[in-house]
Amino acid sequence: MKKVALLFIGLYFFLFHTSYTQTIKNYVQFVNPFVGTKNMGHTYPGATVPFGMVQLSQETDTIQYEQDGKYNGTVYNYCSGYQYKDNTIVGFSHTHFSGTGHSDLGDFLIMQTVGELKLNPGIANDSKSGFRSKFKHENEIAEPAYYKVELLDYNIVAELTATNRVGFHQYTFPKSDSTHIILDLTYGIYNYKEKNIWTFLRVENDTLITGFRQTNGWARTRTVYFAMVFSKPILQYGYKKYDKNVYRGFWRKFDESRNFPEMAGENIKAYFDFKTEENEKIKIKFALSSVSTEGALKNLKTELPHWDFYKVKNESQNLWNKELAKIDIDALTLKDKETFYTALYHSFLGPITYMDVDSAYKGLDQNIHYANGFTNYTIFSLWDTYRALHPLFNIVQQKRNADMVKSMMAHYNQSVHKMLPVWSHYANENWCMIGYHSVSVIADALVKGNLNSGFNQQEILKACINTASYKAYDGLEYYMKLGYVPEDLNSSSVSKTLEYAYDDWCIAQIAKSVKDEKTYQDFITRSENFNQVFDSTIGFMRPKFSNGEWRKDFNKLSTHGQGFIEGNAWNYSLYVPHNPEKMIEMMGGKSKFAKHLDTLFTMHIDDKFFEGTEDITRDGIIGNYVHGNEPGHHIAYLYNWTDEPWKTQARVRMIMRSMYSNTPDGLCGNDDEGQMSAWYIFSALGFYPVCPGSNEYAIGSPLIKSATINLENGKKITINTKNQGEQNVYVEKLILNGQELNRNYILHSDIADGANITFYMSSNPKIR
Amino acid sequence: MKKVALLFIGLYFFLFHTSYTQTIKNYVQFVNPFVGTKNMGHTYPGATVPFGMVQLSQETDTIQYEQDGKYNGTVYNYCSGYQYKDNTIVGFSHTHFSGTGHSDLGDFLIMQTVGELKLNPGIANDSKSGFRSKFKHENEIAEPAYYKVELLDYNIVAELTATNRVGFHQYTFPKSDSTHIILDLTYGIYNYKEKNIWTFLRVENDTLITGFRQTNGWARTRTVYFAMVFSKPILQYGYKKYDKNVYRGFWRKFDESRNFPEMAGENIKAYFDFKTEENEKIKIKFALSSVSTEGALKNLKTELPHWDFYKVKNESQNLWNKELAKIDIDALTLKDKETFYTALYHSFLGPITYMDVDSAYKGLDQNIHYANGFTNYTIFSLWDTYRALHPLFNIVQQKRNADMVKSMMAHYNQSVHKMLPVWSHYANENWCMIGYHSVSVIADALVKGNLNSGFNQQEILKACINTASYKAYDGLEYYMKLGYVPEDLNSSSVSKTLEYAYDDWCIAQIAKSVKDEKTYQDFITRSENFNQVFDSTIGFMRPKFSNGEWRKDFNKLSTHGQGFIEGNAWNYSLYVPHNPEKMIEMMGGKSKFAKHLDTLFTMHIDDKFFEGTEDITRDGIIGNYVHGNEPGHHIAYLYNWTDEPWKTQARVRMIMRSMYSNTPDGLCGNDDEGQMSAWYIFSALGFYPVCPGSNEYAIGSPLIKSATINLENGKKITINTKNQGEQNVYVEKLILNGQELNRNYILHSDIADGANITFYMSSNPKIR
Repeated sequence: MKKVALLFIGLYFFLFHTSYTQTIKNYVQFVNPFVGTKNMGHTYPGATVPFGMVQLSQETDTIQYEQDGKYNGTVYNYCSGYQYKDNTIVGFSHTHFSGTGHSDLGDFLIMQTVGELKLNPGIANDSKSGFRSKFKHENEIAEPAYYKVELLDYNIVAELTATNRVGFHQYTFPKSDSTHIILDLTYGIYNYKEKNIWTFLRVENDTLITGFRQTNGWARTRTVYFAMVFSKPILQYGYKKYDKNVYRGFWRKFDESRNFPEMAGENIKAYFDFKTEENEKIKIKFALSSVSTEGALKNLKTELPHWDFYKVKNESQNLWNKELAKIDIDALTLKDKETFYTALYHSFLGPITYMDVDSAYKGLDQNIHYANGFTNYTIFSLWDTYRALHPLFNIVQQKRNADMVKSMMAHYNQSVHKMLPVWSHYANENWCMIGYHSVSVIADALVKGNLNSGFNQQEILKACINTASYKAYDGLEYYMKLGYVPEDLNSSSVSKTLEYAYDDWCIAQIAKSVKDEKTYQDFITRSENFNQVFDSTIGFMRPKFSNGEWRKDFNKLSTHGQGFIEGNAWNYSLYVPHNPEKMIEMMGGKSKFAKHLDTLFTMHIDDKFFEGTEDITRDGIIGNYVHGNEPGHHIAYLYNWTDEPWKTQARVRMIMRSMYSNTPDGLCGNDDEGQMSAWYIFSALGFYPVCPGSNEYAIGSPLIKSATINLENGKKITINTKNQGEQNVYVEKLILNGQELNRNYILHSDIADGANITFYMSSNPKIR
Repeated sequence: MKKVALLFIGLYFFLFHTSYTQTIKNYVQFVNPFVGTKNMGHTYPGATVPFGMVQLSQETDTIQYEQDGKYNGTVYNYCSGYQYKDNTIVGFSHTHFSGTGHSDLGDFLIMQTVGELKLNPGIANDSKSGFRSKFKHENEIAEPAYYKVELLDYNIVAELTATNRVGFHQYTFPKSDSTHIILDLTYGIYNYKEKNIWTFLRVENDTLITGFRQTNGWARTRTVYFAMVFSKPILQYGYKKYDKNVYRGFWRKFDESRNFPEMAGENIKAYFDFKTEENEKIKIKFALSSVSTEGALKNLKTELPHWDFYKVKNESQNLWNKELAKIDIDALTLKDKETFYTALYHSFLGPITYMDVDSAYKGLDQNIHYANGFTNYTIFSLWDTYRALHPLFNIVQQKRNADMVKSMMAHYNQSVHKMLPVWSHYANENWCMIGYHSVSVIADALVKGNLNSGFNQQEILKACINTASYKAYDGLEYYMKLGYVPEDLNSSSVSKTLEYAYDDWCIAQIAKSVKDEKTYQDFITRSENFNQVFDSTIGFMRPKFSNGEWRKDFNKLSTHGQGFIEGNAWNYSLYVPHNPEKMIEMMGGKSKFAKHLDTLFTMHIDDKFFEGTEDITRDGIIGNYVHGNEPGHHIAYLYNWTDEPWKTQARVRMIMRSMYSNTPDGLCGNDDEGQMSAWYIFSALGFYPVCPGSNEYAIGSPLIKSATINLENGKKITINTKNQGEQNVYVEKLILNGQELNRNYILHSDIADGANITFYMSSNPKIR
């Protein structure tokens, strides 16, 4: 009786929860997990705890590939397994990326039916064609760590919650002599028809199943082990195998397909039969591990020793309340409040915990390692998250962010390339996107004082240097030789040059911190390479060949093959986060640069220039500015380096208003493991880290009325606004700890030990 | 300059090794590892230590399957990877079964070439068609723990030796700028084109490679990890993948196929390039583990910390000398001596060590276990080896046999079926053949006093009872209900009934030993079930239907679908090892029974009756008696229960003479992990365990002149013969510890603490 259904019928305020005023504040009520599930947000609405290993969520489509196995584009829509527009449900699986632009996971699909056993999922819009069921949003509830839906075809109510490593299912059945719980090991997200390498199931006794699933998906070699317990003994069970058979002794000894307690194969679907009374509940605890079935069982027994579903729901929601309490805000509207806390929720989904309760995990070298004294994390979507998510963690998740750096260092130590992670998850380096932005995450944490204890900073610097020196990596050999990535020898040459230059500046900051002057000089010199790809004759960054000549056929609007990745020259030319002053000077000075920005935000650009670049959709575009994808996330803040900082304030407020909301279509593009959401959190608070690795936050236009940020050192940052309002988007003055700020930025050191900030808002820009 | 070449040119005696008279006796010189490599012995001639985890041996064929992937029968010939008739070599792989009738393994094929790089093995009789090479037996040497061959196409000399867990290769190259060492991960024995599940390789540095291979062969889910070190740095490397590609970030970043240090896929072949001078040696240490690459590296560093190839060869050959010294014999001829020590060598190849140096291994439940206080073994071909191999171990490998029982109990504890092994290897139960003969191995060890310490005998009994009560297993539910396996409900019904009855007798012996009278009665009653399938109207065991009627269409000669497995009614009707007296009585008494045996050994049987039963070939047949397969191995000894025991003596001697020799064709059928060889060892010493689990050995006809069996308790059994000779096959009298024996058998208790046995031989039978 909550959230989505009510949102749509407008009764929300009347039924406002009493818990709103409880001592432990109920922030969970302000989170709508459906935000981003419509269109290309790629979030999932299912149950998970903050940074939890299990993401137990529903799947609404399995037909991602055409018969011939070729990619048909649909898979991109189902990165998280769920699309709000769908009206049939395939089942519930245990692992999901949040908001990514590439897909994988979807392990261990559970579905329950009554009546005739069906092992085929059926097609999307005809639930009778298989085991899938129709569902309606009015019978669906999504809250942090809780999801509920009615499976209309079977009159079954499904409820989900989770601890860190255990998914907890509760199904309420009708009376039936033929109740089935299906465990479909063939299901998966991305290339699912050919994804499985091997799967294995053991029916250990009449309530416990163990096994594993090994896939070759986006991650090249990934194995997840599980232990699954039913609350009620299985009557009978069996499976169907979709593999070619290999001769072995089984055939003449057993009917392997029925009640044979050890099932294995590339593509198998198991089913477990029960009889149920009217309204009888069967519960399932489903634990994961990257190590072994033994590890999964240990996780299960440690985290979930009982069968009280609502106790787990309450405890897991309290974990969310505790995390969300880190930023306590008052907003202009309930809608804003919900948008804010949903963004904060999305910011705290990942990177996810990646170790068993005994600290064991499978490392990048495929061996078992133990995280000594830290929590090991995985899913590092670093090209996205270095921008605002990790900087946000440096304020409100310092301990976790330090552990994430430790996790990156563990990855580095296990890496045969001796590189820090690029896009890593579950003992795999996926090599997705460009740059080596681990160094930005590390520099930002170091500069902000979060790596002061428990780290060998020399080792960290060495890891960064090695990463930035791996010649075979993505044009790096040419970059080191020529100062730029040559367009004729590597793709996306300008984007790589620009991002390497920024990353090199980050390494220089680390070198400076550990007083390694030589390395500092080397990398500060490398960080100036952005000017190597700037063509002053046209005022844009431009692809350059290895012979030093500019590429001639060059379209500044197109995102395809112009030397940029997921962006065009208009946007990517603005990527010099570590030296905007120099960039502005190169581009003709402050005034000309501000006009360039004005044009960017207002020009018309034909859809054709973005067509086929999946990560950019019309929803996320303002003029030629792309908010729905990451490379431009700092751009609106660049007016701060001109004489027109009020334009940053207007633009940022406009982006918050037009690109975010509290509804399923409330994200304008992939949330990218929280980066899109973290941008919103910073911007709503009134400042943004344009250059992670520096200690500056550029001032924007706060959207909150007031906020208290509770730091891990016990101190508080209080943010207040005066004259806050829908039209009052401009900052007239900012009082920091009693003093009026005479710059466009605040320093991390201004706030690290607590601060009082008051924004005086106005409907008129403050023209310098 | 030894063995095979010389055997063929007859110079052997002239070059007789001086070490023959050394203090540590050189038994190795009497072993010819080529025995059994011609025709269907299925032995491998490569390098291994006693019970060693690594069996490093050469492969002579890869074309086992036709294009359509269907079994073409050839695979049976290549169970061990090598056939003596072949003249091209494909490479050297690290795991091999010895003598089995089913195939698997063949992991990690190494081949070296010079000149143009070829990654296709080519076809058997055209070495130029691929990387394979011609070779000649005259350039080939095989000794225990040592193998040498010249690769004629490349002018490379290959030498192999091994420690327990590490294969050690030494290659002597010609001068070449283009020397290649190929690691072909697609190669394997059995179903090799579809066998790989996944493979993974890491070039850790310019000499160390790690990785794993996971297969779905005969074993359903098997993973072997490795660590491989070159003695010389790799110049460059690369690989070719034969899989469909899945999109991931690699493509735009790296040329994965060249010098990319992390290779993975379903079907890949890697190569490593070097430059070599004339006669330059490159060595490879190749360690295995069932646990992890870390485990393999630990095995490598512990067992083989140096590069001295001949030191390892000497040490490993000394391990063989130590084991072979357990039975020191004098023989009538050198040929007999070589046949004997080769049989002893083959008896000591398996079960193999299955744990890392730190005792870790992957168990049947796919979790990592530690063998606490014992050596864990795998490859239990129990339908074969319970007969004579494990009884032989109860005399000369007591410690190892007790550890094998511990390994079986570990298997039981990890088994989801709660069954002792049937045919197990590498964390898999292959369910091959019939019965539950683990209980025979256990009963025999128990009765012979080898499980007295370190065992919980009640637990052992429970494991045996559970194993014999698993209803779903192979007709066992019917057997327990009806007293026999009904022909209409299960295949090979008579064989199963007979073998279950014998196994049940074994369990009764265990129950007796632990004073569990109830279980004793239950199982001694079950052990009488052999009479349920005896049709007194025809005097043969015969398939019976569930309604109690005999099967009408029934051919006593055919081995196909007549209720017997790998045998016909003539042979299998004689299978009541635990109660020959009763069997003889049922079959009409001693005289009629002896005539039945006479007929068996002398009748003519048309080949058609055995056609298609792979495990039986003409080589192993005498009349209708089949020595080349196991079910009849006790038959020649059955005359001992008639009034004509001298016929046992004649037949046994005849079988030794006609079915065994010291040449490549010296085995008349599969050696079956040493069972065929263990039959020979016992028979050559003059006695045989007709009924393992009893403490009796039936007297036969010794072939040795004299023997000393060195027991683990320091005692000796000395066996002497008087008047031994080619014609003197009959035992006139037998003096046991100074007393003339007045029975046809000796007891284990007669010899367990040492004994003196003297056989007085004669050319005339002693007619009672």
